[in-house]
Amino acid sequence: MTKGVLTIVSGFAGSGKGTVMKRLLSRHEGYALSISATTRKPRNGERDGVEYFFKTKEAFEKMIEEHAFLEYASYVGNYYGTPASYVDEQLNLGKDVILEIEVQGALQVKKQRPDALLVFLTPQSGQELERRLRGRGTETDEVIRSRMKRAGEESKLMSSYDYILVNDDVDRAVEELHGLIRSQHLAASRNSGLIERISRELAVYQ
Amino acid sequence: MTKGVLTIVSGFAGSGKGTVMKRLLSRHEGYALSISATTRKPRNGERDGVEYFFKTKEAFEKMIEEHAFLEYASYVGNYYGTPASYVDEQLNLGKDVILEIEVQGALQVKKQRPDALLVFLTPQSGQELERRLRGRGTETDEVIRSRMKRAGEESKLMSSYDYILVNDDVDRAVEELHGLIRSQHLAASRNSGLIERISRELAVYQ
Repeated sequence: MTKGVLTIVSGFAGSGKGTVMKRLLSRHEGYALSISATTRKPRNGERDGVEYFFKTKEAFEKMIEEHAFLEYASYVGNYYGTPASYVDEQLNLGKDVILEIEVQGALQVKKQRPDALLVFLTPQSGQELERRLRGRGTETDEVIRSRMKRAGEESKLMSSYDYILVNDDVDRAVEELHGLIRSQHLAASRNSGLIERISRELAVYQ
Repeated sequence: MTKGVLTIVSGFAGSGKGTVMKRLLSRHEGYALSISATTRKPRNGERDGVEYFFKTKEAFEKMIEEHAFLEYASYVGNYYGTPASYVDEQLNLGKDVILEIEVQGALQVKKQRPDALLVFLTPQSGQELERRLRGRGTETDEVIRSRMKRAGEESKLMSSYDYILVNDDVDRAVEELHGLIRSQHLAASRNSGLIERISRELAVYQ
């Protein structure tokens, strides 16, 4: 059993990230989604350990002190974070763990886990992003403007990612993401055990 | 047209490298094999610019002085080298160029071209390598011993490669190699033009 690959997927609101993730997990075996911890109250039907790990403010802050998070942030008065323990448990089971997370959090995780794969999902253009946001038909002009503004800020960090996926075809984006993660399994840095074994087997001929 | 990816493939004699390369090129579009230059005489049927670029010793040494090689070495009294010009011409045409080359040469190229993908092909074990070499039935014990000894030396440099491919199934190895090269096209470092364009398109919303 080899350890799984940790992949962080970020993308603009409207990049189609949610659809790509859902299809990746329904089509391919061996993936696990990371589960976030939060201090906000469970909504109707949300279960502890499924949608979120629900924590009190005190418990969350204790976890911060104990460096138990790969990243965390506070948003509208509540904490949100990624507990390292769940991620590591899944990686050790050989699962490829996907962390769907915004750019600041992604860079926090990369600092702690330099071998994590950072993937950024984007539509083919800024115009296409606006078209998709407007196409939903549910958001006011003001909300769309603020999402586009935020996308502009996020785009400044795209070059810190390892790979850029242009999502102009969901099926292609899913297979590209799957291919990136499969490839990562072949990295020499992940296969030092194999390299050492073969070197040892060949050493008898020296 | 985006520039092609330069991939260097190395592997022990008996790793099945030749078969993997042939099948990759027959099955997938967009690849070009690098052509070596040599000072050895053409054999029956060998054509200049197809199997090799045939050079005089003087012409080859002039090219060395002009830093025209990605790597070169001398072997049994003849020079062999990889002219950068042919590789760059193919990369600029958008071809993914494959350089099949031994470990010392591979590391020479990586120094000049840090964005080159270094892939090492190996059987699953030292025993399997010996079995394959013996299975050919054409080599003396002494030749096999010397190949195994050489493999042992080469194995010490495996960890300098980016990726390790275990060739226990040729078709799988071909698809893994193809997947590695496709993934490389998505690297953020190769897509700075795309990133800049999208950032610019989003800047109007700031």
